[in-house]
Amino acid sequence: MILGLDIGGANTKAASADGSFVESMYLPLWKGCDLEGALEAIRRRAGTADAVGVTITGELADCYGSKKEGVERIAGEAKKVFPQAVFYGIDGEFHSDVSDYRLFSAANWSASARFIGAAHKNVILIDIGSTTTDIIPIVDGVPAARLTDFERLSRGELIYAGALRTSVAALLQKAELRGKAVRTSSELFALTGDVNLLLGNISEEDYTCDAPDGGPKSREGAALRMARVVCCDLEEMTVAEAVELARQAYRKQVDDLKDGIAEVAERHGLKGAVVCGMGDFIGRDALAEMGMPFTLASGIYGKHISRVFPAFAVARLLSASLERS
Amino acid sequence: MILGLDIGGANTKAASADGSFVESMYLPLWKGCDLEGALEAIRRRAGTADAVGVTITGELADCYGSKKEGVERIAGEAKKVFPQAVFYGIDGEFHSDVSDYRLFSAANWSASARFIGAAHKNVILIDIGSTTTDIIPIVDGVPAARLTDFERLSRGELIYAGALRTSVAALLQKAELRGKAVRTSSELFALTGDVNLLLGNISEEDYTCDAPDGGPKSREGAALRMARVVCCDLEEMTVAEAVELARQAYRKQVDDLKDGIAEVAERHGLKGAVVCGMGDFIGRDALAEMGMPFTLASGIYGKHISRVFPAFAVARLLSASLERS
Repeated sequence: MILGLDIGGANTKAASADGSFVESMYLPLWKGCDLEGALEAIRRRAGTADAVGVTITGELADCYGSKKEGVERIAGEAKKVFPQAVFYGIDGEFHSDVSDYRLFSAANWSASARFIGAAHKNVILIDIGSTTTDIIPIVDGVPAARLTDFERLSRGELIYAGALRTSVAALLQKAELRGKAVRTSSELFALTGDVNLLLGNISEEDYTCDAPDGGPKSREGAALRMARVVCCDLEEMTVAEAVELARQAYRKQVDDLKDGIAEVAERHGLKGAVVCGMGDFIGRDALAEMGMPFTLASGIYGKHISRVFPAFAVARLLSASLERS
Repeated sequence: MILGLDIGGANTKAASADGSFVESMYLPLWKGCDLEGALEAIRRRAGTADAVGVTITGELADCYGSKKEGVERIAGEAKKVFPQAVFYGIDGEFHSDVSDYRLFSAANWSASARFIGAAHKNVILIDIGSTTTDIIPIVDGVPAARLTDFERLSRGELIYAGALRTSVAALLQKAELRGKAVRTSSELFALTGDVNLLLGNISEEDYTCDAPDGGPKSREGAALRMARVVCCDLEEMTVAEAVELARQAYRKQVDDLKDGIAEVAERHGLKGAVVCGMGDFIGRDALAEMGMPFTLASGIYGKHISRVFPAFAVARLLSASLERS
């Protein structure tokens, strides 16, 4: 079996090249999680891996003093468990050494885009995860995005908002409720996980990260967290009002996404999209409103693979690279 | 001695009516802090208190399922340590029973405004703390703000941003750097404490809350946290660029504050302000730009009292109430 790993700041994902093994675990690195132990668990469950390809995105986690340190430490843990591991670089090659750390920083979108690029020569790949959204132009089969997160943030290629972990305070500075424009709290009171649970976009099981108050990941728990965003509780606010607040946060996220997609589409003259990730429904809504044709990766590869797409992509790229050599 | 206490979600503050005892401690209730132990420490250090007045603002902390529960639990802890405690209500009276919890929810601004109202009949009281900003119209000596946080958020009377704990992500959705408009990360990477440290508005000792990464509260630590806001580290970004980012976040906070002040001033025809709180410099900058005359409470009562103004005000109000009776 050929195994792909995508080690992010909040989630670690694994998939085999044949799609028979898929796993995603909430593993917030900045909290000092046991990455080695988690990889060991994956190793046991996946069975013998003939080859392991890794893509790294967790190096910005604030437990690391620099991206260089982050890449080195994550790669070090991976090698302890998988000595055969090779690391996917934004040059499209696999490397056993990560000393040129810039090749490996936030490279998971590049793996996904190269894999998609084999089938779709000119398309926008949109990967909406729990935390971030990648909007990657693929031109003539090759990813045409800029190589650093900073550059991508300035070109609509990276929007730091996702389907679960984004603070509602970062999305909504004002809401409309009871006929008033009301400012919001800047506190981490509610997440997009609460928004999407209230709107029926995700199930309680999909809400895999921690809730900000450590409370229940239920409709009522989410409504209480949304109420706090305008300094209310559920004695002052109805669940229906909390849902209305969620709708406005969702509206803002879809609008921000449309801005990013439009910017990337126009720059490269791209007219269609492929959407993957656990938040693919946000992309579907944005693209439908824009009238841009799109394919959901879940429709081709299944929902489980769509959710760990970079891990699957890196396994498939490694498989292809081994076949060539 | 007459003691005043202001028990907030992030900070617990104490002051005596004569100003000889002043204390502020970072005590984040949502983390399950030992409020009783902290109050016990205050009791020991303050000495015999003939009377204790309390104002409560921590009831929105997400460890409480509702504000009612928050008020009751906070009052319960206070009464364990200070059985003589009475609680300041937004009706301007002291109560020994908190069962009508709405009287006590977020009442600290009301205590400050009633105290200031005795000397300044028509003025705006601006209290900028670590977490929030109150902009309270005082009309004919009496606070004329709305009574719930929700109403105040919708009228410019409460802005949920302060000098230390506000996530930069909630302030800045886009920044301008290297000639580009760059989106920001929604992660809790940097705080206004980092902004103000970098701009020289506060000292390292003033940065009393936790840093998001648990890292040093130094200029370099703050610069690294600011760099992460645009997904950089200090190998990709200079300290000068981090300072520029801080300047933009500060600019946004001052502009938001000016909006709130202008709204309140216009509604009530008020032409001057009194500014208190550890973030009074933000108010000073906003008011200077607006050309509105103002008095700093620190100039009258000293810096230490200005920083715990609601605790001082509640002690003085209780003192006056005892003299009357």
